[in-house]
Amino acid sequence: MDTLHPASIDDWKANTRVLAFDIFGTVVDWHGSIVREMQALYPSVDANAFALAWRAGYQPAMGRVRSGELGWTRIDELHRLILESLLPRFGLTHLSEVERVHLNRVWHRLDAWPDSVAGLLRLKSKFLICTLSNGNLGLLTHMAKRAGLPWDCVLSAEVFRAYKPDPATYLGVANVLDVSAHEVMLCAAHHDDLQAARACGLRTAYIERPVEFGALQPKDVSPQAGNDLHATDIQALADQLGC
Amino acid sequence: MDTLHPASIDDWKANTRVLAFDIFGTVVDWHGSIVREMQALYPSVDANAFALAWRAGYQPAMGRVRSGELGWTRIDELHRLILESLLPRFGLTHLSEVERVHLNRVWHRLDAWPDSVAGLLRLKSKFLICTLSNGNLGLLTHMAKRAGLPWDCVLSAEVFRAYKPDPATYLGVANVLDVSAHEVMLCAAHHDDLQAARACGLRTAYIERPVEFGALQPKDVSPQAGNDLHATDIQALADQLGC
Repeated sequence: MDTLHPASIDDWKANTRVLAFDIFGTVVDWHGSIVREMQALYPSVDANAFALAWRAGYQPAMGRVRSGELGWTRIDELHRLILESLLPRFGLTHLSEVERVHLNRVWHRLDAWPDSVAGLLRLKSKFLICTLSNGNLGLLTHMAKRAGLPWDCVLSAEVFRAYKPDPATYLGVANVLDVSAHEVMLCAAHHDDLQAARACGLRTAYIERPVEFGALQPKDVSPQAGNDLHATDIQALADQLGC
Repeated sequence: MDTLHPASIDDWKANTRVLAFDIFGTVVDWHGSIVREMQALYPSVDANAFALAWRAGYQPAMGRVRSGELGWTRIDELHRLILESLLPRFGLTHLSEVERVHLNRVWHRLDAWPDSVAGLLRLKSKFLICTLSNGNLGLLTHMAKRAGLPWDCVLSAEVFRAYKPDPATYLGVANVLDVSAHEVMLCAAHHDDLQAARACGLRTAYIERPVEFGALQPKDVSPQAGNDLHATDIQALADQLGC
């Protein structure tokens, strides 16, 4: 397919109907938000190391579900399991149950990147915009309400009972919204997520988030072949999609 | 429980966090919308009788899924099955596949009652507002986008793989959003739906929709005991909830 020819580019853009967004890192700043909250609540803790350790437990925790060691488990509960494992290392074993519940819900209180809300509002005028995150429906809904993320629909691994990069998630978006896979574009800051979506026939847009892991841990955001679009942020994505 | 004492009324209102809305008849005018579209597309058909017959097939069609005769089936597909059964009776067997698909999607194009969008926007400022409909996620999402219904989250029988009045749907809302059943209020124009929700511990608000079945078939909208609130429309519900 001649994707470099302007006419074909406009063709597939005209056929795109749904933009499905990855959330953690792509739309919201998990690292900065957790660092800010830890610094306010527990100033003696190394907030940067704490945020990175919590997030680093994420893939292994989902791996326990994928392997069958754990039954289907929402991310809220996986976050809590990881949190429990981190408390001794960070000197936080004195936290009460109420404090642990509150801290675990920091994932519901993540701040959007500065361009996210304005960019999404522009995109919503032309496309159906939804989430496609491994985060559970409650987490994504509470987060959206607090941060003002204007989703047309909140979709999650929880709806499909499978975590990304399982094809059931990408194809599930198309199926639920009654469109073809190629009419859906996954927008994400992670090349592995985009690659898996592309293998299912979705269009893909890479969103640069160079400080996803904090300013001390800059991320390589160079373009990779295969993505239909590469945007510095969600406002730039709206520019590229003519919104 | 002394629900008539003003202090207790304020108590439970203060504890209500989620308003879950029934959709067909409660938020959107299925009868009027189908009549208008039929009159425009197929003026020779008795649009009132057609709309009533289509809707009358709804409970029996869900019954075929409940009984196990059909596997889990989305409402879009049930609507299509009913439509096929109605075409001979209404002299519409000449419709092409494209025309049938388009007509079936009239359920995605239902108009909101005049008070719905403004009322929901007011309620959204204080509560998390979501759908709880037997309609499928795609139907509800496309409808919301077209009609401007500002849901925080689109929830459906499709998420719970059970139709209302199965307790899994009412309790599912609370479970997914991580709140207690008594923190959720179902808002609906149908007493049987509200009664089933109440049996699960939810609060209930009845919304009058006297012409749900058309002006020729007025509905008894008298208050029934047991509902926490009784409102003439969604704007009046917002008044009663102090929004």
